Amino acid sequence: MPEKVVIIGSGPAGWTAAIYAARANLQPLVFEGAVREENRLKGTLPLGQLALTTEVENYPGLPAGSSREYLRTALPPDRQPYWVQENLPQPGHGINGPEMMELMRQQAVNFGTRIITDDIDRVDFQRHPFTITALGGQAVEALSVIIATGARANYLGLPSEDRYKNHGVSACAVCDGALPRFRNKPVVVIGGGDSAVEESTYLSKFASKVYLVHRRDKLRASKIMQDRAFANPKIELKWNRALDEVLGSPPPVGVSGVRLGSTVGGAAEELPASGVFLAIGHTPNTDFLRGQVQLDAAGYIVWTKPQRCWTSVEGVFAAGDVADSYYRQAVTAAGTGCMAALDASRFLSH
Amino acid sequence: MPEKVVIIGSGPAGWTAAIYAARANLQPLVFEGAVREENRLKGTLPLGQLALTTEVENYPGLPAGSSREYLRTALPPDRQPYWVQENLPQPGHGINGPEMMELMRQQAVNFGTRIITDDIDRVDFQRHPFTITALGGQAVEALSVIIATGARANYLGLPSEDRYKNHGVSACAVCDGALPRFRNKPVVVIGGGDSAVEESTYLSKFASKVYLVHRRDKLRASKIMQDRAFANPKIELKWNRALDEVLGSPPPVGVSGVRLGSTVGGAAEELPASGVFLAIGHTPNTDFLRGQVQLDAAGYIVWTKPQRCWTSVEGVFAAGDVADSYYRQAVTAAGTGCMAALDASRFLSH
Repeated sequence: MPEKVVIIGSGPAGWTAAIYAARANLQPLVFEGAVREENRLKGTLPLGQLALTTEVENYPGLPAGSSREYLRTALPPDRQPYWVQENLPQPGHGINGPEMMELMRQQAVNFGTRIITDDIDRVDFQRHPFTITALGGQAVEALSVIIATGARANYLGLPSEDRYKNHGVSACAVCDGALPRFRNKPVVVIGGGDSAVEESTYLSKFASKVYLVHRRDKLRASKIMQDRAFANPKIELKWNRALDEVLGSPPPVGVSGVRLGSTVGGAAEELPASGVFLAIGHTPNTDFLRGQVQLDAAGYIVWTKPQRCWTSVEGVFAAGDVADSYYRQAVTAAGTGCMAALDASRFLSH
Repeated sequence: MPEKVVIIGSGPAGWTAAIYAARANLQPLVFEGAVREENRLKGTLPLGQLALTTEVENYPGLPAGSSREYLRTALPPDRQPYWVQENLPQPGHGINGPEMMELMRQQAVNFGTRIITDDIDRVDFQRHPFTITALGGQAVEALSVIIATGARANYLGLPSEDRYKNHGVSACAVCDGALPRFRNKPVVVIGGGDSAVEESTYLSKFASKVYLVHRRDKLRASKIMQDRAFANPKIELKWNRALDEVLGSPPPVGVSGVRLGSTVGGAAEELPASGVFLAIGHTPNTDFLRGQVQLDAAGYIVWTKPQRCWTSVEGVFAAGDVADSYYRQAVTAAGTGCMAALDASRFLSH
């Protein structure tokens, strides 16, 4: 018997799709990915990008509060955070990323979702039922599939960058820009495209100064975005510069500055900074899909119908960042996860 | 000085828009509506349709758990639920609708959202800045507006229907169908369109029997939907019948059956039922918008750009059920609330 719906991915989109599919009695099967060294290095661990963040302040419904009792009773003992298990003080004012993802995962489990802790090697969407084959070799047939494998932020790959992730190094200005650590202090943005300028503009509302660091002597950003950057008195362009090292002290202090190299043979330069924002793009996790479903030039899945989660293959749906290079928020991913599950449910009724 | 962004509505879409707008330093002003008798009768009270529900099981991130300590620390004393204030047992296994909405509201407040507790009388989107005038007479100017006034479920208006809301009477099969009270027991669906058939099919997965009650001798639903209803052995059509009364006992017992009248002069009939699902449509809360922004034939705001929350007026955005007659879930509304706020933020930067 083929599965009614197979969900690939374990971020907000995947678990929300599972919650809705389970409640529609579709007995969803989720491939949540596995903890592999390769996934750790790429930023594609189970539970998605949220698993790599600390406090989540902007997911609606989870404001600051004492979450100990809730986490203790909502999660099974072996999946509770260490500070609940060991009765240590709550590390922040609200829910953090991994905790939020455990809550969503458990909610899907509560309604009967089955989980396979493996990554996907390949899919065959040419024939229906579809075939999904895991890296470990397990193959399952499915009447419908929801792809929610997300995207990963691009980093430069510096050890110092890795060291201060969540402590001043971020790849999401919208997520982290409002944190107290950046208020009225200088920050650095790395990049030269529209999103680098947009994140610089966004950060200029909080920071005392935004250094926009770009490898070349002109921006790739559109004219209007460039004009905006040049007109903003808080944004200072650092041309022909590349990030050599993030400077700082061990967490919780974190980032205190950057050392910028020259891309044209000049001297290095150090700048004080409370944060470093990477804005050098994201990479959707769609390698395993090549040739099976329509992707755009950047590799994102194309939604083929306005306000729906349909893909180019009937019966295959996409949710979350794997099809959204624009908003990329936990709650938008969860929203499309719900939509994809309801789309799949209607597809299966026909 | 005009407001940067005014948000109209206080359901998941409105508060999520406020959270994101506040974190983008746009100092949002929310019109949350007021507690008026007229709003109570229409089902348009502050905090939206969720304020009228009990347990919310399908909002991702809030699984079953002990929420007392979380609600006590996250909400100010005067907005905590009575059972927290009075230290009574938790009434359910998880967060209920009004509690979830209070959490979202507080989260918006935490980031500096300002709130006016009034409804909107009229708007003027012909000139920029826009003008929004409240019922109480207060007028504010706004550079951008997010409309998140939602929709309300249509009911027949029977006193017995009102009596058992949340105790067997529901207008959302997807929200409530999986509740234990309906499992392996007969339920009644009122309606004759696609959504009535769809909800009947959905409920047939849980219920022992679904009586689909329709006033006429044929369905308005599309052919394919009708065929599906006729082919489903659990669905029994009750032609030329109308709901005269919901039968039951005082809560928590609730619905135990229905009395159906005849629309063609026949005798009344009583049926045992654990639930009554109204599927006679929704009405979007857009009366105050006539002539100001493009609405569809049913009165819903039209999103004018795929995967964005733009409306026909530049600078006016729509989020949640007021523009979505299809998914209508808390998490999809929250998702579009986030999108609308980011859309407004980008609009204001230009």
